[in-house]
Amino acid sequence: MTPAQLLEGILQGEPAVQRRAVAKAITLLESTRADHRLQADALLTAMLPHTGKAFRLGISGVPGVGKSTFIETLGLYLISQGLRVAVLAIDPSSSVSGGSILGDKTRMEHLSVHPQAYIRPSPSSGTLGGVAEKTREAMLVCEAAGYDVVIVETVGVGQSETAVNGMTDMFVLLQLPNAGDDLQAIKKGVMELADLVVINKADIDKNAATRAEAQITSSLRLLGMHGNPDHATHGALWQPRVLQISALLGQGVEAFWQAVGKFREMQTANGRLAARREKQALAWMWERIDAGLKLAFRQHPQVQALLPQTLAAVTEGRLPASTAARQLLAAQSQPSFPGAPQ
Amino acid sequence: MTPAQLLEGILQGEPAVQRRAVAKAITLLESTRADHRLQADALLTAMLPHTGKAFRLGISGVPGVGKSTFIETLGLYLISQGLRVAVLAIDPSSSVSGGSILGDKTRMEHLSVHPQAYIRPSPSSGTLGGVAEKTREAMLVCEAAGYDVVIVETVGVGQSETAVNGMTDMFVLLQLPNAGDDLQAIKKGVMELADLVVINKADIDKNAATRAEAQITSSLRLLGMHGNPDHATHGALWQPRVLQISALLGQGVEAFWQAVGKFREMQTANGRLAARREKQALAWMWERIDAGLKLAFRQHPQVQALLPQTLAAVTEGRLPASTAARQLLAAQSQPSFPGAPQ
Repeated sequence: MTPAQLLEGILQGEPAVQRRAVAKAITLLESTRADHRLQADALLTAMLPHTGKAFRLGISGVPGVGKSTFIETLGLYLISQGLRVAVLAIDPSSSVSGGSILGDKTRMEHLSVHPQAYIRPSPSSGTLGGVAEKTREAMLVCEAAGYDVVIVETVGVGQSETAVNGMTDMFVLLQLPNAGDDLQAIKKGVMELADLVVINKADIDKNAATRAEAQITSSLRLLGMHGNPDHATHGALWQPRVLQISALLGQGVEAFWQAVGKFREMQTANGRLAARREKQALAWMWERIDAGLKLAFRQHPQVQALLPQTLAAVTEGRLPASTAARQLLAAQSQPSFPGAPQ
Repeated sequence: MTPAQLLEGILQGEPAVQRRAVAKAITLLESTRADHRLQADALLTAMLPHTGKAFRLGISGVPGVGKSTFIETLGLYLISQGLRVAVLAIDPSSSVSGGSILGDKTRMEHLSVHPQAYIRPSPSSGTLGGVAEKTREAMLVCEAAGYDVVIVETVGVGQSETAVNGMTDMFVLLQLPNAGDDLQAIKKGVMELADLVVINKADIDKNAATRAEAQITSSLRLLGMHGNPDHATHGALWQPRVLQISALLGQGVEAFWQAVGKFREMQTANGRLAARREKQALAWMWERIDAGLKLAFRQHPQVQALLPQTLAAVTEGRLPASTAARQLLAAQSQPSFPGAPQ
């Protein structure tokens, strides 16, 4: 299919046709073949005017916190409200493990077979930046296909929370009720990203959940002073908050969605939703440029020829680091002659 | 003076000659002229075998915490122990304010005139990366000149603590006794860097200082679990600790230096001092390469020609961020013809 045909299928196909077009488009975007990449860029650009209407919800939490159950419960609730839901994932470990845990559709057995839902596992190739790029582009496909809510989840490996936060309108952190231990299990900087913290499995120990709520609320207040710049200016601003829910029992899901609605309303009114998306797009562009520059540098024949001895000299203290950097940069800027002795 | 003459002066000059050679060398390293840069690289490389013997001590803390008094008291104490002391600074704000507060030698009136001490204000040009590079190179000059302790201080603007931590053997964070408020005044991630936290001005309120010590100690323990990877492996490892001192009254300075000695001893025995320096040198090299790649990209004529319209298209949602990145990267890899219409 040509990009134009794919776009047509995404925009106006009847359900089965659309679902197939969405899947094909995402597969095209994930391809690393150069000709596919050109088609993918054409598709993306043509698709862009039809994107941006969905709410982009990022969800993170350590393994065991109940993300799948939460997303399944939330997804089915949203469908019951007449909304269509897409679930994407960023799992940079999936390329190592040879298959994403997030690809296991049995995790969300009811949601995954629902005609109003679309679930796509994490792309499983390359660096976090590469995986995130493909997920970001898949999100645009889902938006163009008219999904109202796009959920991007991550298991929190490496810097994946930052990547998810960098492509969503709202970042939700799932926590367990055992606050003390749990606070320690969060990686540095992740709590600062949260627009909303959800204490899941609150039914297991109500007292612990309430203690956790108090503790996390006070942490968020502390972090807010020097935290996420998205929370730090004037106007009617959203204050990060904490909710207790039990996804398994379906308790608190409605209150959660009300909080999301309130967030969306405030962020739209104060202009921060649009500002955040604009900032994300530019940050994303520069991030991909940096990645491309680094890749081109490391693949340059003169750099590859010089690098081993340079690294050894720096490691052994024979060459100053800044001099080494200048030498390697100079090597890259020399014209390279394929086949010349290196 | 040629690099060889400068090196000779640095290594073996009598005090006045050496001091002049050190100053001239640092000025050469700070120069942005291309011919100076070549000489500077030659000097650095020739100097490298004579470096590495000093202990590199990073010191940070918010304005008002008493850094100058602390460094003056410590410096004079070290000189009384037969050691020579160099004090350098990283103040990326100095290029904005048009003159470094750290250049004000009256801040350390006794230390600054002492023949066994060398104080150099922050370089005042360019980005944090550029300022840090010059300070890092100045540190090597001081080491070659035989200074036993090189103190690198920062006022903590932007990411300057990370830069100081990235070039020193030990990172010390100065704090005030009012722990609660003060903990909030620390930027995210800075506490995690600290090998030692010093509560200065402990004489003002002994009770507050003791409460602060307990609170910070418990924070450090919490952070240690997921914090600085330099503290996270097996073997006889240094545990970050907290000390109370009063630099003004000279109380606790000896205990501070004993703690530093203990740190140095443990880090030398478990191999982490050498590993940290090696890691720093490589990280530094890559950091400078990244900075160089970005600069070359932004200065490329084709990129400069395309950038304004590309930024506008991404900002206005007409062009996908990842496509924009690919277009700009492609623009840079095209040969550029000076004088061609842009």
